[in-house]
Amino acid sequence: MTLLFERLKRDAAAEWDAYVHHEFVRDLGDGTLPKPAFQHYLVQDYLFLIEFARAYAIALYKAPSLTEMRKASAGIQAILDETSLHLRLCASWGLDAAAVEATPEARATIAYTRFVQEAGLRGDILDILIALSPCVVGYAEIGAELAQTGQGLDGTNPYADWIHEYAGSGYQAVAQASLEQIERLAGDYLTEARYPRLLATFRHAVRLEADFWQMGLSLAD
Amino acid sequence: MTLLFERLKRDAAAEWDAYVHHEFVRDLGDGTLPKPAFQHYLVQDYLFLIEFARAYAIALYKAPSLTEMRKASAGIQAILDETSLHLRLCASWGLDAAAVEATPEARATIAYTRFVQEAGLRGDILDILIALSPCVVGYAEIGAELAQTGQGLDGTNPYADWIHEYAGSGYQAVAQASLEQIERLAGDYLTEARYPRLLATFRHAVRLEADFWQMGLSLAD
Amino acid sequence: MTLLFERLKRDAAAEWDAYVHHEFVRDLGDGTLPKPAFQHYLVQDYLFLIEFARAYAIALYKAPSLTEMRKASAGIQAILDETSLHLRLCASWGLDAAAVEATPEARATIAYTRFVQEAGLRGDILDILIALSPCVVGYAEIGAELAQTGQGLDGTNPYADWIHEYAGSGYQAVAQASLEQIERLAGDYLTEARYPRLLATFRHAVRLEADFWQMGLSLAD
Amino acid sequence: MTLLFERLKRDAAAEWDAYVHHEFVRDLGDGTLPKPAFQHYLVQDYLFLIEFARAYAIALYKAPSLTEMRKASAGIQAILDETSLHLRLCASWGLDAAAVEATPEARATIAYTRFVQEAGLRGDILDILIALSPCVVGYAEIGAELAQTGQGLDGTNPYADWIHEYAGSGYQAVAQASLEQIERLAGDYLTEARYPRLLATFRHAVRLEADFWQMGLSLAD
Repeated sequence: MTLLFERLKRDAAAEWDAYVHHEFVRDLGDGTLPKPAFQHYLVQDYLFLIEFARAYAIALYKAPSLTEMRKASAGIQAILDETSLHLRLCASWGLDAAAVEATPEARATIAYTRFVQEAGLRGDILDILIALSPCVVGYAEIGAELAQTGQGLDGTNPYADWIHEYAGSGYQAVAQASLEQIERLAGDYLTEARYPRLLATFRHAVRLEADFWQMGLSLAD
Repeated sequence: MTLLFERLKRDAAAEWDAYVHHEFVRDLGDGTLPKPAFQHYLVQDYLFLIEFARAYAIALYKAPSLTEMRKASAGIQAILDETSLHLRLCASWGLDAAAVEATPEARATIAYTRFVQEAGLRGDILDILIALSPCVVGYAEIGAELAQTGQGLDGTNPYADWIHEYAGSGYQAVAQASLEQIERLAGDYLTEARYPRLLATFRHAVRLEADFWQMGLSLAD
Repeated sequence: MTLLFERLKRDAAAEWDAYVHHEFVRDLGDGTLPKPAFQHYLVQDYLFLIEFARAYAIALYKAPSLTEMRKASAGIQAILDETSLHLRLCASWGLDAAAVEATPEARATIAYTRFVQEAGLRGDILDILIALSPCVVGYAEIGAELAQTGQGLDGTNPYADWIHEYAGSGYQAVAQASLEQIERLAGDYLTEARYPRLLATFRHAVRLEADFWQMGLSLAD
Repeated sequence: MTLLFERLKRDAAAEWDAYVHHEFVRDLGDGTLPKPAFQHYLVQDYLFLIEFARAYAIALYKAPSLTEMRKASAGIQAILDETSLHLRLCASWGLDAAAVEATPEARATIAYTRFVQEAGLRGDILDILIALSPCVVGYAEIGAELAQTGQGLDGTNPYADWIHEYAGSGYQAVAQASLEQIERLAGDYLTEARYPRLLATFRHAVRLEADFWQMGLSLAD
């Protein structure tokens, strides 16, 4: 039986490819991404993570068992920890936490985070996990792929730290656990009638992730 | 295939029986229910309906299609109309709308209404319809049963109006439409893994309805 | 004392101006908007209204009194009625309701509608009314302004019907009632500490409305 | 200026007194509470805490700042830790975690937990903190009071461990932090118009807590 996540990725293959191979990603991999684009992205990604912690709180509220509640609680903690990488990098550019937090959210940040939260509030825990998956799983796929190129983890690549974070075993395990959670909860909640709606949710979420890269590249507000 | 609602009723048969044949119901049917008990019940039922309109708003928000949204919107309107029976009866006892609305909600009113609303916010539209069903469908069953007894619609029964309301074709059609909606949405959302959780929701809701009768009988606050 | 809505409009004056005088609006007013742009917009606006009916259901659920609940219920009904203008126009182009409903939501449609719904679910009824207001009140302002230009209601303007709808006394009264509701609920819920967050909500919502015009103009998906 | 929590306690003084000096509490304090009553209570309190972790997740989602989000996240963790006291005690009676979790929720457990969650979903973070406060703050008051009586922490009192837990500096600090959070957020969100609704929420919550003691005493399901 095809796993739900594989089926979604296959049925939104064009959108997925445009996301994981976006120009921003390629430029991260070969180190040619302009520093202002990366900085703009990273500040927004920090704001994004704050909203993602809220999304995991929604998942915790909706979890059907104590086991899934504990996983969501760990997710909240992992996200709040992930922000320290961001603040460390921002500090190295002279931006402190207060300055980062005072930055207004860009359209692309709002668009994806509110989409995920609303999907979770309207639906069940499977809906929110599917909406989160392009981020959680996609970053692991991107990190692993960039790490395998010649220039990804090269000492001369200014973005090697970032790539290392998401290619590393810690983050890869987070993504793998998330995939297993999706399949476990699909066993509980998925019906064939719901699949088209879940695919629409997934497709939108993947596009919103690609828009997030584009926001970085264009320095869009 | 057994219909979902029939299966739930069978698996919570003892609770269902205790609800639809509660002493309050029997005393309504033979006209022996003390008037203060009925008045206490009816004022609380008015407050209950206001919260039920909110529950239908949650169902509308969660509806998977425009068709189901329109049905929920009609539900909101039907409930707001149903309150006019209550206000008419209360007015005949010298209680105006302002006095009724200023009455504090009894524990039993809060218990059932918040349970239904929370079930809907946590879950999907099927969860909230199941939580609502002891009320929507149960009142139709009770109304029909009481109307068939010798004293139910008898001119000497002071509660004949109430019985007539729920035994009447208008309300019976509302309940029938609700049953069809449950089965239609079960076809969309139900998995066998979810059934025990839906049964727990249903069982709690049925008990909370029986507690509501008891609140009337005991004049409990 | 400055009314809340006036204060928000003043503090987001640049964004408000960019929204109500967007190129799409100007081209509607003088009749030069390309028909495909209008058609693309109108199909998306239909999908948008379906989501707005959900937003009003959230407002109904959150309403602090039966009076405000009834107003939200009327809002749901008004929106579902407003869609008939859309379907009538779409039908005249050979698009039936099924075709319209099967159209995927564009990014801009999702962005604004989910933002509004999430603002309402996270916050209180004042948050959702503020998030809705650029649409509800803005369309009335735009309609009235376009109707006053020489070409707005001119028989040769292919968009005269649309302008007439929003300039008409029916819609103007809806917008006026919405403004009064905002001020009434501000009297209940507004604190000065909340104002910056409400302004951020308003500003985002206004920008998302301008993006919606742009989506029409660019035929964006 | 009177603090919000003090004002609520004063305006619901009778209900507060009936809660903190409930027969169950007195019998805990002098060690005369029948063991089955305590065991019944404790198993239900475990189920209650699982739902309270969900309530804190709702508070996290609703928090207006990263600081308040981190506090809510700590609250979730504290609750999940608090359950270990319960499981340790249950294990000493031969009840393992699986048996405890398989116990159906009693009416009183459902009544209070769903009331709190729904108050939070309908309202803002202040609403949910007020609904939680009879539990969070009340247990600290009860623990401290019982510890000061001659028999509370006496080695012969079979409930000395329980009293010690809530009288201890760890729990007292949690309650104090919660009080400070309420006053901090009242500074942000409270209007005089909202006070009567907050008082109604508080009063209901206090009564539901007293009902929870009564459930233990009566071994009610």
